[in-house]
Amino acid sequence: MIDQELNIRPATETDLPEIIALLAADQLGATRESLDDLAPYRAAFRQISGDPNQKLIVLERGGRVVGTLQLTIVPGLSRKGSTRSIIEAVRVHADERGSGLGGQLINWAIAESRREGCQLVQLTSDATREDAHRFYERLGFTASHLGFKLAL
Amino acid sequence: MIDQELNIRPATETDLPEIIALLAADQLGATRESLDDLAPYRAAFRQISGDPNQKLIVLERGGRVVGTLQLTIVPGLSRKGSTRSIIEAVRVHADERGSGLGGQLINWAIAESRREGCQLVQLTSDATREDAHRFYERLGFTASHLGFKLAL
Repeated sequence: MIDQELNIRPATETDLPEIIALLAADQLGATRESLDDLAPYRAAFRQISGDPNQKLIVLERGGRVVGTLQLTIVPGLSRKGSTRSIIEAVRVHADERGSGLGGQLINWAIAESRREGCQLVQLTSDATREDAHRFYERLGFTASHLGFKLAL
Repeated sequence: MIDQELNIRPATETDLPEIIALLAADQLGATRESLDDLAPYRAAFRQISGDPNQKLIVLERGGRVVGTLQLTIVPGLSRKGSTRSIIEAVRVHADERGSGLGGQLINWAIAESRREGCQLVQLTSDATREDAHRFYERLGFTASHLGFKLAL
């Protein structure tokens, strides 16, 4: 087997169908996404692209999008004016799981957070995703908090 | 007792000493904050003020700052291009606890999130803050997630 080149880069609007397919393929995402109408995704993509504190990235292997995540930079007053980053919407293609790509995505996000001067990286993971919890703990995260959500 | 007028408004730089005092008075914040040098807080305040997706607010009663929180608006692709908001750094003055001011702050954040078109409001709370967990559940939040943190 020949190793195919891995590349992490900012997402472009032409990546949208592949990114949404990754979001929709997820166990919890399956009921939440719809590939029938891309218009709301395109509108959201433009909002993300227009905000310098949002970094939506894709992981490519051999020219195919096999992973994605979104990193948000949040300046704040607490902890002596610390900036934190928040990781959301982490997905790796089902065919590529177990090959360390998820770790590469998260390690990119950690490195980028350092470059942005963040003192803290945080994320929430659905309480039912036990594999994900072990994954984040292996990468150095601590499950020190509860994550509360309210749908509007 | 005459009720003193309550007012929720955007924080200004002159509010900083009172806001930092609230952050430092907190049980977990006590070891993290320092009122000796406001420079890093002033720098952070300018970053927050310069970002239209950050809303740092104070709750005043009778002209005194008795509460604060920060709301961040995060556009995203998942859930059909949903925008979510994240609540951070919620504090109410120790003298004023139990008088419903925390609920007023969170309800302001929920209403503001609706005005901003968010479909989801989220926050994390330290696993040791059991009173806070009951408080958020009473306000309609569900502790559906674990919150992971990594200090850089």
